Amino acid sequence: MTIFTGEIELTTDQPRQMIDITGRARALVRESGVQTGVCSLFAHGATAALTIQENADPNISVDVLSCLDGLIPAGKWLHDRIDGNGASHIQAAIVGPTEVVPIRDGDLHLSTWQNVFFCDFDGPRRIRRVIVTILGDP
Amino acid sequence: MTIFTGEIELTTDQPRQMIDITGRARALVRESGVQTGVCSLFAHGATAALTIQENADPNISVDVLSCLDGLIPAGKWLHDRIDGNGASHIQAAIVGPTEVVPIRDGDLHLSTWQNVFFCDFDGPRRIRRVIVTILGDP
Amino acid sequence: MTIFTGEIELTTDQPRQMIDITGRARALVRESGVQTGVCSLFAHGATAALTIQENADPNISVDVLSCLDGLIPAGKWLHDRIDGNGASHIQAAIVGPTEVVPIRDGDLHLSTWQNVFFCDFDGPRRIRRVIVTILGDP
Repeated sequence: MTIFTGEIELTTDQPRQMIDITGRARALVRESGVQTGVCSLFAHGATAALTIQENADPNISVDVLSCLDGLIPAGKWLHDRIDGNGASHIQAAIVGPTEVVPIRDGDLHLSTWQNVFFCDFDGPRRIRRVIVTILGDP
Repeated sequence: MTIFTGEIELTTDQPRQMIDITGRARALVRESGVQTGVCSLFAHGATAALTIQENADPNISVDVLSCLDGLIPAGKWLHDRIDGNGASHIQAAIVGPTEVVPIRDGDLHLSTWQNVFFCDFDGPRRIRRVIVTILGDP
Repeated sequence: MTIFTGEIELTTDQPRQMIDITGRARALVRESGVQTGVCSLFAHGATAALTIQENADPNISVDVLSCLDGLIPAGKWLHDRIDGNGASHIQAAIVGPTEVVPIRDGDLHLSTWQNVFFCDFDGPRRIRRVIVTILGDP
């Protein structure tokens, strides 16, 4: 079994934004040469997360963000006394920074409507990073 | 280290349903021969997810589904203009499609009350799939 | 590639509590000798979970717990007829028991403000356990 490591670097330009990183993750899997295994993705940043959702209708990302904002609204948290982004931290804690996607035939084995999204709950940020570790057989 | 791959195929018969797949995951671990490692499970479908919960009281599944329905109700999302299942997508995005369970002594190393559940938030579906990748030492 | 296994044993002394286990996870990574790979952490207990959040401001843990309590309040679930902790089970199901953190240069590759927390939603408990599996190259 081999290990391949990579990073996906992103810039966000909105206060709250979901960016589809499936294509870049797929490119790393191809570069790794791994045919069968897993691709572990990990979002850096305590106000960022990863999620897997449909991208055919871009409104799903809008829905996910507005749902989280409704459930966990800004402006009412103890951490807001420090830097005003308490809701972003809580959303990141609940959605979570990790996804582990199977690799088959040298590609991410997602279903038709599944895409991997980076979620920035406290943008815009010039640099955001997803750490990628691919484990498997060539 | 070896890699073993498998799939768990399911049929759901309710609009919203949690199905315990622990026994089938355990059977794949036994088949793999792996004694020490991890079992990565990944639900296909952008309206499906995996979760780990108790199955001794079947009402916990009812509670989880009714809680999610209360927090993320159907019928108020932009995606509903396309096919009416916006809430199912958001619930899947938040619960998430992946679990990684440790393997010890050739078995899933869950605690007494932990079981792995497939969640269908948009059933019934004739075929749902969980992709299983087992990494470890025999 | 090698596999290293370990456990983190905890005692909680509050009904609801988040405990930073980053230092103990880092110690296991050092003990493993793995330089590049992943560290899979898995919380035992159907009323426990893992999350990754900031620890510089201890109020973030308070915010996460109070947010979950507001969204998923105690006392209104079918499982409460059995043992009164239905909300704890649902919170654990949604936050989830697993995290997979990358290892680089022999250490957990977290970002500056990320720490790994064990969440006890139904404490206090004399013994809680996190199962650790480290996969990687020395």
